[in-house]
Amino acid sequence: MKKWLIATAVTACFAAQADEGMWQPHQLPAMADVLKAKGLEIDATSISKLTEFPMNAVISLGGCTASFVSPKGLVVTNHHCAYGSAQYNSTPENNILRDGFLAKSFAQELPAAPGSRVYVTESVTSVTDKVNQGTAKLTGDDFYKAIEAAEKKLVADCEQDDGYRCQVYSFHGGLEYYLVKQLEIRDVRLVYNPAESIGKYGGDIDNWMWPRHTGDFSFYRAYVNKAGKPADFSKDNVPYEPKSFLKVSAKGVSDGDFVMVAGYPGSTNRYRTSEEVANQFEYYYPAAKELREKVIALIEQSSAEGSDARIKYESTLAGLNNYAKNFTSMIEFYGKSTMLADRRATEAELNKWINADKSRKQQYGKVLAELDRLVKKSDEHQARDLILGYFYYTTMPSVAERLYRLANEKQKPDMEREPGYQERDLNRLKNMLESIDRRYDATVAKAIGFELLSRYAELPASEHFAALDKFWGIENGVDAAKLQQKLDAVFGDTQLGDKATRLAWLDKSVADFKASKDPMIQYAVAMYDTNEKERNTRKQLSGDLMKVRPQYMEAIIAYNRAQGKPVYADANSSLRVTYGNVKGYTPKDGLYAVPFTTLEGITQKDTGVDPFNAPKAELQLIKDKQYGDFYVKSLDSVPVNFLSTLDTTGGNSGSPTMNGRAELVGLLFDGVYESIIGDWNYDDDSNRSIQLDSRYMLWVMKYVDHADNLLDEMVIVK
Amino acid sequence: MKKWLIATAVTACFAAQADEGMWQPHQLPAMADVLKAKGLEIDATSISKLTEFPMNAVISLGGCTASFVSPKGLVVTNHHCAYGSAQYNSTPENNILRDGFLAKSFAQELPAAPGSRVYVTESVTSVTDKVNQGTAKLTGDDFYKAIEAAEKKLVADCEQDDGYRCQVYSFHGGLEYYLVKQLEIRDVRLVYNPAESIGKYGGDIDNWMWPRHTGDFSFYRAYVNKAGKPADFSKDNVPYEPKSFLKVSAKGVSDGDFVMVAGYPGSTNRYRTSEEVANQFEYYYPAAKELREKVIALIEQSSAEGSDARIKYESTLAGLNNYAKNFTSMIEFYGKSTMLADRRATEAELNKWINADKSRKQQYGKVLAELDRLVKKSDEHQARDLILGYFYYTTMPSVAERLYRLANEKQKPDMEREPGYQERDLNRLKNMLESIDRRYDATVAKAIGFELLSRYAELPASEHFAALDKFWGIENGVDAAKLQQKLDAVFGDTQLGDKATRLAWLDKSVADFKASKDPMIQYAVAMYDTNEKERNTRKQLSGDLMKVRPQYMEAIIAYNRAQGKPVYADANSSLRVTYGNVKGYTPKDGLYAVPFTTLEGITQKDTGVDPFNAPKAELQLIKDKQYGDFYVKSLDSVPVNFLSTLDTTGGNSGSPTMNGRAELVGLLFDGVYESIIGDWNYDDDSNRSIQLDSRYMLWVMKYVDHADNLLDEMVIVK
Repeated sequence: MKKWLIATAVTACFAAQADEGMWQPHQLPAMADVLKAKGLEIDATSISKLTEFPMNAVISLGGCTASFVSPKGLVVTNHHCAYGSAQYNSTPENNILRDGFLAKSFAQELPAAPGSRVYVTESVTSVTDKVNQGTAKLTGDDFYKAIEAAEKKLVADCEQDDGYRCQVYSFHGGLEYYLVKQLEIRDVRLVYNPAESIGKYGGDIDNWMWPRHTGDFSFYRAYVNKAGKPADFSKDNVPYEPKSFLKVSAKGVSDGDFVMVAGYPGSTNRYRTSEEVANQFEYYYPAAKELREKVIALIEQSSAEGSDARIKYESTLAGLNNYAKNFTSMIEFYGKSTMLADRRATEAELNKWINADKSRKQQYGKVLAELDRLVKKSDEHQARDLILGYFYYTTMPSVAERLYRLANEKQKPDMEREPGYQERDLNRLKNMLESIDRRYDATVAKAIGFELLSRYAELPASEHFAALDKFWGIENGVDAAKLQQKLDAVFGDTQLGDKATRLAWLDKSVADFKASKDPMIQYAVAMYDTNEKERNTRKQLSGDLMKVRPQYMEAIIAYNRAQGKPVYADANSSLRVTYGNVKGYTPKDGLYAVPFTTLEGITQKDTGVDPFNAPKAELQLIKDKQYGDFYVKSLDSVPVNFLSTLDTTGGNSGSPTMNGRAELVGLLFDGVYESIIGDWNYDDDSNRSIQLDSRYMLWVMKYVDHADNLLDEMVIVK
Repeated sequence: MKKWLIATAVTACFAAQADEGMWQPHQLPAMADVLKAKGLEIDATSISKLTEFPMNAVISLGGCTASFVSPKGLVVTNHHCAYGSAQYNSTPENNILRDGFLAKSFAQELPAAPGSRVYVTESVTSVTDKVNQGTAKLTGDDFYKAIEAAEKKLVADCEQDDGYRCQVYSFHGGLEYYLVKQLEIRDVRLVYNPAESIGKYGGDIDNWMWPRHTGDFSFYRAYVNKAGKPADFSKDNVPYEPKSFLKVSAKGVSDGDFVMVAGYPGSTNRYRTSEEVANQFEYYYPAAKELREKVIALIEQSSAEGSDARIKYESTLAGLNNYAKNFTSMIEFYGKSTMLADRRATEAELNKWINADKSRKQQYGKVLAELDRLVKKSDEHQARDLILGYFYYTTMPSVAERLYRLANEKQKPDMEREPGYQERDLNRLKNMLESIDRRYDATVAKAIGFELLSRYAELPASEHFAALDKFWGIENGVDAAKLQQKLDAVFGDTQLGDKATRLAWLDKSVADFKASKDPMIQYAVAMYDTNEKERNTRKQLSGDLMKVRPQYMEAIIAYNRAQGKPVYADANSSLRVTYGNVKGYTPKDGLYAVPFTTLEGITQKDTGVDPFNAPKAELQLIKDKQYGDFYVKSLDSVPVNFLSTLDTTGGNSGSPTMNGRAELVGLLFDGVYESIIGDWNYDDDSNRSIQLDSRYMLWVMKYVDHADNLLDEMVIVK
């Protein structure tokens, strides 16, 4: 952590150092010299054009990244990104998630899980002026609503073009807006996934860890109708023919080599104020970790291991545990760092620069204080918000609330409805309502509800919602037996557990809800006004923040520009490019993480018990040193995973890692434990992404799974 | 493991490879060229002479190694070797074990724990002919007793010289015998130990682990009377003036540098047959690990944490846990290795060589089969022997047995008594009897006894001792209540728990024992004949093994000699020299253990909670980068511990690690987890010893503890 922070404290403020940076493609031409010097062989300008190679081969799956690797729409992504599709197609008799699956012909390919999409970004247009038009004098709620209306209009216009999904992305907290237009392919099929004991080797134990030996890859194929347009699944559909695709490297990379990643990173917090940092690490993460671990314990206590209820919550538990580990790492490495002091120092530097010039002082002099005031205000009820946020894990109450909100929104013209409740959103909402059967159990939900309502009840009076208190009968604190009885009644009597009943509510009116005897529906009705009021309060505050934060970011950008340094925006799920090198690191004093793992490491870890139960055939090949075409002399083996300095985060999963010629040399799938805090603070010394090595993927395909048809379809280069 | 075993299978049998080898000093001149090429700068011949520098500076503490580092008898060894002395001198008011201790003058030095000794080896004489004289035609018991008698005679003659302790060591299972004569200094004083949070930093958690940050050093001083002879503690004694001492290096070593260690390694098993390997790893270690962990659990269950009883068993628990970890590692790495197959292959090679020559075939052709037959015979009752071996942890029964055995032995002339029961042994026996108060609790002992007797009772009839069955009333299996009652009676009624009573039995006659009403004494009397019979059976078998194993070793040595390769003997607690290099290793695929840790690693590990609670003053110095005179540029810090390829084992603790000029550059104190199996099989890739770096020792002395008086007394060289 040290090196970067000392550097910034002295010379710069929030400026990207070394390999830090999630760049928007249009920023790359200006950095062409740096990229060339690092090892980029193709023209930097070409990467900035979304409709040209290689960027038009990089696609989004919504939450994950992927890439085309054949002229016939073959898509490679992470195993964990196609996990749901393998799970969806598995039966006890034909467990393709466990055993793996390979379609030997197009006809054998299987429909991906419902809702699976391939998004091909076709344009990114600056719409800052359009979004801001006429908003200069607005504040708070009015400002927020004006921005929202402008965005909805831009999206609606863009989506006139059939088969496209459009979205306006805010950069630098609202300083800039871009309209992204993506082709939305909705017939996606599963082509090939290795056995889970390869694709998820190491499981949750190895999650975020190095050394790593995960064969985290799977293949999809995108299909369109005969006219080449996106269409629902049909036997008559044909493979989509992308304008370009990535060649796959059988030569791979070596220690120190240039690599780059294009993908869709979700969210980072590199420009938060020191007050925000302090609150997040000193209040939020510790409190959320405690609450999260409590919810995990409650789920485990209220569902017996191996029971039907437990199976329903496995995926929820995985998510809860994933971020419990994340928060633990955040807290641990924050405690070891001087992050807060350093961020305060950089803020002081920024202030010094601002105050050194009269016009700058006038423009930015009060921005930080105003930003901190607003942030503090929005954190005012954070203890309550945290508890009620986790109340979401009781599932049915929020389902009822969303359904009733839809009924209310539907009374408005489509363009005036809240985002998420427009006609374009109904299909997603329906998918969500359908899938609940597989992840809800009333006993578990009640246990969570009891705990969270009890905690809520203990909060000071100022934090209480009268409607919530009244509904659960906790106006005067919790009477355990009474609360339990109420929970039993509400969760026991509701008919929302029945899928058809639940879906039927999608089409009901506000009057239907008000007349309903279903206690969960009654809960939604009882809470509606309170929720609306809360939402409006938030909009007011968001509007104010959306006025101030861009000014703060403008100051930071100006400060860096004055020193000739480019600034990238925090991740926001939009397409970004990051570059760096293959490189190891020092996880702790006395140990060095070398940048490659090898096949032998699989055998070393293997216990025969999940998640360290590689297929027997694979272990035998390793024992027999059958390295085949992918032998690397310096490793005396085949590389499995490798480390790089690439600046990535959640959402980058499945991203193609490319060499200087934009050949696919790996798939990004994780970061190391020490770099979780990198979402707040990139550190040259410890920020490392973990990639699946293309040579391991090809080795598994060729020798373990005999996926010759796919190897023939792809273009493999030495 | 691979590299070495493949090499041996093809080219050699049990021959030392690379840095393997615990050499007897007299073997070194023949290896002078190799040593010089590796980096030895002083004459190899000088190391072979025990009364010259540097070997006369290397001393034994009995179980640990140490060295003189000043002309005034200042001794440096491991903190864990002087632990008992710091503990002995600690009181709740003045806890020098916890807080550290530094005598600022000779007068402030404290007597070491009772029984502490400094042994200076003065001569090692080959006595093979004398031991074997007249034994050629003897076998079994007769042979054993003749050897024992010859050894006792040699020892008695040698110890005529007042102030000396002598011992005959058997090498290669009885192929060679050496008489070792050591000056026995018995006024030993504690001079300096750093705080436990430095000297035992990392505690049991880091035991056998890398990365390591333990300041495992302490200082003693040897005192003699004014005539320069060993004497009991007296204020009039004066510091012993050794003929030479080691200079301490402030320059230290770098990656790849030559290092050597002289010390007293306890025991290795590098030449065991494949049958012995199979039995040890497939029966003994798994069974002993299970039993050991059971005994640990019983102690923990029957003594509350923090209770007086638990405190009494802390040191026993540490020992039990230490070897539970050892056995776990043995089993783990045996499972991952091809050790058994490889050893079978080397045996096949040896046999091939033997059978290729008529006279060799005649001489050695049947040796291996005969050896395996005898080994098998000695393992016949191993399940029972294991259980009754752990019965030792009940303490009092074996105390009573030893006391009664002493009474019996005392009826014989001194020279005819069993080793351990001669006049020369009585002082040690008394020390042991005195110390029991601090490590015995009847409730714990009974819990262990109940478990082990229950297990013993379940063994087949062939494994039972009638006397044992009868005494505990388990002739017809275990009646739990009845056995508990018997245990309560025996452990409850015995007066051996009283120290004075216990010590009084040292002087009682056989008749006194027979007449005693003390149930524990009655137990000893009841078991005596059975024990004697067992001991005689063992002597018979040992005698036979002592005839056969030397022949087997002779064959191995001849085979290696034919290929120009020297052979070293298994460790046997006698003085050895090993050489190698500073070198890291690969603990697992994807990670490299670098050869040095640094001060910053202490801060990284520190939690403020024992065993990771370095002194605040030390942490502040590290934070302030106060590296002082011991800064190493390549590490940008001060090195703390380092790795080497040195071939060491338990007993080497405290050994001076020396550079090519025989300057002290470190203190050996541990080996890495992956090399525990090295006692059976040295592996170039994973066998690493862990040393305290002399620069860390000097840094702590100078900046943390301000031990200027000692720094002035030593000769510190750059």
